[in-house]
Amino acid sequence: MSNKSAIGVFDSGIGGLTVTKEIMNQLPKEQIIYFGDTARLPYGSKSKATITMYSRQIIRFLLTKDVKAIVIACNTASAHALETVRKEIEIPIIGVINPGAKVAAETTRNGNIGVIATEGTIRSGIYNEFLGEIRPDLRVFGKACPLFVPLVEEGWIDDPITKEVVSRYIQELLYKDIDTLILGCTHYPLLRKVIREVVGDGIELVNPAYETARTLKHVLEEQKLLSEETTTPEHTFFVSDGAEKFRNFANTILPCEIIETKDVNIKTFE
Amino acid sequence: MSNKSAIGVFDSGIGGLTVTKEIMNQLPKEQIIYFGDTARLPYGSKSKATITMYSRQIIRFLLTKDVKAIVIACNTASAHALETVRKEIEIPIIGVINPGAKVAAETTRNGNIGVIATEGTIRSGIYNEFLGEIRPDLRVFGKACPLFVPLVEEGWIDDPITKEVVSRYIQELLYKDIDTLILGCTHYPLLRKVIREVVGDGIELVNPAYETARTLKHVLEEQKLLSEETTTPEHTFFVSDGAEKFRNFANTILPCEIIETKDVNIKTFE
Repeated sequence: MSNKSAIGVFDSGIGGLTVTKEIMNQLPKEQIIYFGDTARLPYGSKSKATITMYSRQIIRFLLTKDVKAIVIACNTASAHALETVRKEIEIPIIGVINPGAKVAAETTRNGNIGVIATEGTIRSGIYNEFLGEIRPDLRVFGKACPLFVPLVEEGWIDDPITKEVVSRYIQELLYKDIDTLILGCTHYPLLRKVIREVVGDGIELVNPAYETARTLKHVLEEQKLLSEETTTPEHTFFVSDGAEKFRNFANTILPCEIIETKDVNIKTFE
Repeated sequence: MSNKSAIGVFDSGIGGLTVTKEIMNQLPKEQIIYFGDTARLPYGSKSKATITMYSRQIIRFLLTKDVKAIVIACNTASAHALETVRKEIEIPIIGVINPGAKVAAETTRNGNIGVIATEGTIRSGIYNEFLGEIRPDLRVFGKACPLFVPLVEEGWIDDPITKEVVSRYIQELLYKDIDTLILGCTHYPLLRKVIREVVGDGIELVNPAYETARTLKHVLEEQKLLSEETTTPEHTFFVSDGAEKFRNFANTILPCEIIETKDVNIKTFE
């Protein structure tokens, strides 16, 4: 393992690609090895023990690829597994929740923060917990938006139906006088434009994908692990099911074209 | 196993409850043991191999309850696994696809049949295959409607947003001059009212849940397995995750109240 090694990124499926995109933008010299656990998604409704077991298997798989750092590009796995698995490996490992929470706490002026996320993330209370640790005086209002992920996966990104759905979900947060809104699911940055139209200019949108890539850059700098390659890195994408479908979707999101995705039997990485 | 044994019904989650409801209506003396694989839903996006493995585990679980027949109340599992698992067990096993396809083929006058279902079911081409076997002259037009399930699960059943989504999905089938529309996902009968508003009165809606219960009745009669109990049967509901959430939803659908649902570790039924 050296600064020439790749960065491992994983998610329950395709959501983590928004984080990958930010890493590619902010750290264009870094090679990425992505794992999407498409056979076992969604993680949102599963228990802490299950998610921790899944995360361990994926980390073991990524370590066979000699990665120098790992990004858990999934809110549920960050919430349930990060603390445990961090103690078990030697390389830096970063989740998506802390970076977003930190920036939201710095950004808010009136102390009212909204969080939109999947039902699992909202129910876990993880953003309330993290934000409370940073600034106990904050008021945090969560709202589960279970239709956002299927709308994104349907490709109805800039669409009147999506705008109506966004409007209905976000209305109750607007009544709470929030001035900062965390996009607490890795799919949601893809709805950023429509969300902006609904909330207007007075509310800061926090994109944890962007903040996570910034944190990663900072960590790699600190540990002198930044790549110094001058050739364009070749990224690799692995999934546990449906490699082709994954590739098609990924090619609509990422700034580079994915030529191939590979299937992995992740359960064998016990 | 005797005619006093229960009927096993399974689905990836709650969708199969529409089939269960029809069985309760048409076969009120039969006891039902339901399994909803809520920990591993949705099935729609998973591969044939994965769905077959899941179905095998669930069938093994249901057989421990001494069931006399099994209904795969899930289109994806019916499409991917029925043919394989039918050869592996001794009791009757029925899927939801054949009964609906049969009635649709009998119903159509102009030979143009529309099928709405999840992406997995449409991609499998299973309705085209079954309909083609019954009547090779039919023209079958499939349309995946991935937003319908989350809309139902959000409870937005009779809702302007849902009507707009239905309208957008179904428009291209209307252009094909269909006169019969199969509701090819077990959640969809819950959207029947809105679908009817969009398609008007000129199109027959086929509800495979209803037809499956009819087929089950017929099979039990033939094999002399009909229950002759005179007391009201006590149904049992098992899920692989989130028993309480399941129970709440089930109680909005079923004609009887579910008092208790139980969690099962389905992966141990290898």
